[in-house]
Amino acid sequence: MTKDRYLTPLAASLPPTVPFVGPETLERQRGAPFDARLGANESVFGPSPNAVEAMKREAAESWKYGDSTSHDLRNAIAEYHGVKPENVIVGGGIDGLLGNLVRLTVTDGTPVVTSDGAYPTFNYHVVGFGGALHKVPYTADHEDPDRLLAKAKEVGAKLLYLCNPDNPMGTWHAPETIARTIDALPEGTLMLLDEAYADFMPPGSRLPERADDPRVIRFRTFSKAHGLAGARVGYAIGHPDLIATFERVRDHFGMTRVSQAGALAAIGDNEWLSSVIGQVSDARIALTRIAEEAGLKAIPSATNFVAIDCGRDGAFAASLLKALEKNGVFVRMPGVEPLSRCIRVSCGRPEDTECFAQALRRSLAELDALRNQ
Amino acid sequence: MTKDRYLTPLAASLPPTVPFVGPETLERQRGAPFDARLGANESVFGPSPNAVEAMKREAAESWKYGDSTSHDLRNAIAEYHGVKPENVIVGGGIDGLLGNLVRLTVTDGTPVVTSDGAYPTFNYHVVGFGGALHKVPYTADHEDPDRLLAKAKEVGAKLLYLCNPDNPMGTWHAPETIARTIDALPEGTLMLLDEAYADFMPPGSRLPERADDPRVIRFRTFSKAHGLAGARVGYAIGHPDLIATFERVRDHFGMTRVSQAGALAAIGDNEWLSSVIGQVSDARIALTRIAEEAGLKAIPSATNFVAIDCGRDGAFAASLLKALEKNGVFVRMPGVEPLSRCIRVSCGRPEDTECFAQALRRSLAELDALRNQ
Repeated sequence: MTKDRYLTPLAASLPPTVPFVGPETLERQRGAPFDARLGANESVFGPSPNAVEAMKREAAESWKYGDSTSHDLRNAIAEYHGVKPENVIVGGGIDGLLGNLVRLTVTDGTPVVTSDGAYPTFNYHVVGFGGALHKVPYTADHEDPDRLLAKAKEVGAKLLYLCNPDNPMGTWHAPETIARTIDALPEGTLMLLDEAYADFMPPGSRLPERADDPRVIRFRTFSKAHGLAGARVGYAIGHPDLIATFERVRDHFGMTRVSQAGALAAIGDNEWLSSVIGQVSDARIALTRIAEEAGLKAIPSATNFVAIDCGRDGAFAASLLKALEKNGVFVRMPGVEPLSRCIRVSCGRPEDTECFAQALRRSLAELDALRNQ
Repeated sequence: MTKDRYLTPLAASLPPTVPFVGPETLERQRGAPFDARLGANESVFGPSPNAVEAMKREAAESWKYGDSTSHDLRNAIAEYHGVKPENVIVGGGIDGLLGNLVRLTVTDGTPVVTSDGAYPTFNYHVVGFGGALHKVPYTADHEDPDRLLAKAKEVGAKLLYLCNPDNPMGTWHAPETIARTIDALPEGTLMLLDEAYADFMPPGSRLPERADDPRVIRFRTFSKAHGLAGARVGYAIGHPDLIATFERVRDHFGMTRVSQAGALAAIGDNEWLSSVIGQVSDARIALTRIAEEAGLKAIPSATNFVAIDCGRDGAFAASLLKALEKNGVFVRMPGVEPLSRCIRVSCGRPEDTECFAQALRRSLAELDALRNQ
């Protein structure tokens, strides 16, 4: 059999690579579990105990398909954000929703603009549907709205992707900057505003809801501050007409019962959310100090991770990453120069942070010894 | 905003209809829960207690993304079927996997053959990717392999969909018939063999594994006999080259941790599976008797549901369905003549079956009274 015998020309052209290798895969390769799991910006603090209880209660009900409209969760999200349920679509994480939206809007050669080094899974979807990716560089470790706008105008972009606060650098823009960018969008360009990490932003720095603005669709998730990455629940907020189009392509019964129940309980537990945000803030301070003590530089972050500038090139950061892995700590790094001079470390509990600190010292010493051989 | 402002021409052409309305939606419309939930071929008997325990244990671990390769589950499935892990892809139910496969193989105008009245969600995917659906009629309430083959030859079909045992009629073909059909496939036609209900087939009637046959890909699910519809776990078995192509389009971190854990425990509990299959067999006998007592005719089934021929046209069956709904019982019916003379009733516990029997008597009497007015 030729491998691509039945494939469409587009599918046959797609690379077999995947955006991310999971920590379980790495653990199987190295033959041992990690001592600290700080690579995927998961919330080591876990989900709200109410969410865990709700998921346990729902487990035995899993013989029933989940509610195909995620009715209760959708309504709770709408209430939480002060928007209408018609402004909200629930889906399988931001990944799943980005896939849906790209499928709805991108076909062969559709121009799409993003930043070089921004979320690879978005790029995976755009390439997967045949779109033409146009990437602009970061400016001073920030996604650059003006460059994105200029490129969108130049290529007549259908989509403009902006992640605020940014992943993988953790930097962010003020709400006025985002609002100004939306107002300056070229006719026919839709902004995808990925706000996966918005819960961690400093107070007052979040863009107010503008749910009925047809030029922007905003993505949020239960994977980060709510600690439910493994439950795959994300949502988008946008104009009701755009939100309604997801019905044409989404997997209607795709949301599990347990995940719907967990997310519903999570969004009702503000106390837990505040506590996680506080602990993340503590961890950011600790990671910044650890970086400084090691002679490295932490980049200010409004997320649950810190990008640490290792002061040299991508090859050095990659060898540090490998050494950290060997020393029991899972972290990741940006894939593109100049961001790839950094490693990206998720915020964890004090014991996780301490584990990282020790592994960092050991790994840097090992790399030093290698260099001096 | 014009609704379709940002959409591709294909997306703009798609109908806003959805393949199925969920029972929760119907319950909200009628303002009360159903007394018996027998419409979606869920397993009222529930999942294995081991699966429920595993899911409860995993709930608190949901802060971690699920294993992106479903490694342990994939290996367990391979072992269960006596195939290699490379023959197996795990995904978000058969619905999700059919979506992936259609995306890989179908583009504008790609000819696809199925039976008129067969699984609507497959059609939803084909239309959603721009394919040209060619439907052949059932023959005597069976999907008709010869008609499907003839049509595939006529139109040069890329895909040929066959569900065995069939949904929505419950009928089935002998393994020799399926094998002969595979051997007679035109060059370039891939058979999608949907075996969602295969666990319920009479012993000896299942097609032996032929995992390395490049002409067929087989779909199985944890939603039916394993009682995990709400966990969204399905898998496909096929040639390793074809299976590998799913990596190019699937949502790699899309499987929840809880669902992976539940399915892994479920596939290890053969005792529970046998017990469910036994209870389903009892329920089929009971439903057949109930149909006969009501002057209707149950169609022999190798699934966990029974299609009951209501003896008149689709309009009558639809009004019976509505009356059953009003009387507290959720069932469904085929969407296309002549299958739509039937209602489709899932197998349940004796109390579910009794509830259906009472609602059926009441509903038929109400329709009779209406007719005689």
